[in-house]
Amino acid sequence: MQRLAVLGAGSWGTTFAKVLADAGRAVTLWARRASVAERISTTAQNPEYLPGVDLPRSIAATSDLDEAVDGADAVVLAVPSQSLRENLTVFRDQLRPGVPMVSLAKGVEIGTGLRMSEIIERVGGVDPQHIVVLAGPNLALEIAAGHPTATLLAGVDHDLASAVARACATAYFRPFTTTDVVGAEIAGTGKNIIALACGIADGLGLGLNTVASLMTRGLAEVARLGQELGAVPATFAGLSGLGDLVATCSSPLSRNRSLGRRLGIGLSLDEALEASGGQVAEGVVSCRSVRDLAVRHDVDMPVTEAVYRVCYQHLPPAAMIDAIMSRPLSTE
Amino acid sequence: MQRLAVLGAGSWGTTFAKVLADAGRAVTLWARRASVAERISTTAQNPEYLPGVDLPRSIAATSDLDEAVDGADAVVLAVPSQSLRENLTVFRDQLRPGVPMVSLAKGVEIGTGLRMSEIIERVGGVDPQHIVVLAGPNLALEIAAGHPTATLLAGVDHDLASAVARACATAYFRPFTTTDVVGAEIAGTGKNIIALACGIADGLGLGLNTVASLMTRGLAEVARLGQELGAVPATFAGLSGLGDLVATCSSPLSRNRSLGRRLGIGLSLDEALEASGGQVAEGVVSCRSVRDLAVRHDVDMPVTEAVYRVCYQHLPPAAMIDAIMSRPLSTE
Repeated sequence: MQRLAVLGAGSWGTTFAKVLADAGRAVTLWARRASVAERISTTAQNPEYLPGVDLPRSIAATSDLDEAVDGADAVVLAVPSQSLRENLTVFRDQLRPGVPMVSLAKGVEIGTGLRMSEIIERVGGVDPQHIVVLAGPNLALEIAAGHPTATLLAGVDHDLASAVARACATAYFRPFTTTDVVGAEIAGTGKNIIALACGIADGLGLGLNTVASLMTRGLAEVARLGQELGAVPATFAGLSGLGDLVATCSSPLSRNRSLGRRLGIGLSLDEALEASGGQVAEGVVSCRSVRDLAVRHDVDMPVTEAVYRVCYQHLPPAAMIDAIMSRPLSTE
Repeated sequence: MQRLAVLGAGSWGTTFAKVLADAGRAVTLWARRASVAERISTTAQNPEYLPGVDLPRSIAATSDLDEAVDGADAVVLAVPSQSLRENLTVFRDQLRPGVPMVSLAKGVEIGTGLRMSEIIERVGGVDPQHIVVLAGPNLALEIAAGHPTATLLAGVDHDLASAVARACATAYFRPFTTTDVVGAEIAGTGKNIIALACGIADGLGLGLNTVASLMTRGLAEVARLGQELGAVPATFAGLSGLGDLVATCSSPLSRNRSLGRRLGIGLSLDEALEASGGQVAEGVVSCRSVRDLAVRHDVDMPVTEAVYRVCYQHLPPAAMIDAIMSRPLSTE
């Protein structure tokens, strides 16, 4: 795996292209907008998404999809999860059959309940054996700055996941591997809901014990759902679960936690979204799609249910905490 | 379980006495120093350890051990882990045989490698069936302020753990139960080492991904040790593992993280301890005793090993990160 195409030049796609180039790979970075591609080609910077970061000159940026994927040993999908389905209807006609796909997107689609790798499989027509999912504590700006991090690569075909690991390992980016694709994707989706819950606790003026309790019990219920869907429980204690959750919840830039804080001080969802400048926090979408999955599979998810009710059914934030705290005493 | 004695009137013992009183129990709080007991009795405050907190008037404070344990249905041990052994040699002569003991102390004794419940068993002469261990995300000042938290009660005898849970459950303090005493104690000990590692990363100017990666991989190695000692892996993803780790690492008051930060900027252990005003950070002790256990049981613990070497073998902090990052690629 020497030549890779990264499709999507947002902050995470651009950062992962940098990781691959630093690992010695030949990288083509595709941007939807020609102006972004041209700027990266001429200045080796992507100021709109990674201000102040110098990219390796070896990255070839283009807005021509054919050119980007030509001769690629693997294709990295770095488009937003909300637009993955739509993008795949375009990408699928350009992709050589059998080329491995690495998914950076996380989420569960509303309505269908599909995970991102399932959308890649069904819409992109990709064999699950050829899909690898990346998840973990990966704040793009920090990785772009070269701060050490670990990450998780999940593939039904473990050899393929290991090949991707070898292709992207650097002194600052350390991949681990697993075959638990379901676990990595459900963990990566659930963490946004929990971050929203932690933000609500912040808004209510509660403390670190409350936040830590919500994170722990929230991760436990996400693991219960994952297990029901075929995931391995240990994955949720790992990089795509605990790791990503801690990084997300600790970040002052977390959209989910900021939005939750606004809900916690009493704003309605519409008011909170407006105050967030219209930026979509994934947790607002995920609490709907994950709750649907939980109902369908009869999994008890009190934190997700409470976040959903605060967002969509006008449950007062303080009542969310009461609902979680007043459940019958039980084993952990 | 209506009448409980809490032995130790530091911040955690006093807070737990408040929780029990708020739960409707009759509580006697024993303080080693008569002046502390008298102040609590006369002012219903313990300003030295819980400034600004009003205690329930129903708490009876005393420095007379006989009086404290007389008629108690259970005794809570809230003395520091370093002095538990010494205290037990005094307590054991006053305790009615068969009275349940609840341990708030965490740690592994240097030299012997004993967990706190094992010391209670051996030095206090208490049957393991009569011991319950409390662990979880429990910053005393926040609980004393009534902020909601969950916690874990671990007992070999699950009925006893459940009885303690019923005795201390309030609207703001929600106990869960388990039979995994080993897991709860090892998790509660390991978290201090990981907090030290996170502080070292802070001192090196690294980011949230690094901290999240250290927390995740650190907890994974502590779980490996725990499993070797008979613990259930899931405990480490629970309140005594992840929960306590997150609360500890997030707290600006964490002694371990502060001390780690001083090590990270290049101070020696002696200099860092002096700069911390001589306060002992548990992680400095635990990285020795836990490393001993790891060596004895042949468990690979790279984060603990690196923290140990920074503390006691002059490993430069930056080399700690390199040592952890440069290991061979592997499964999670």
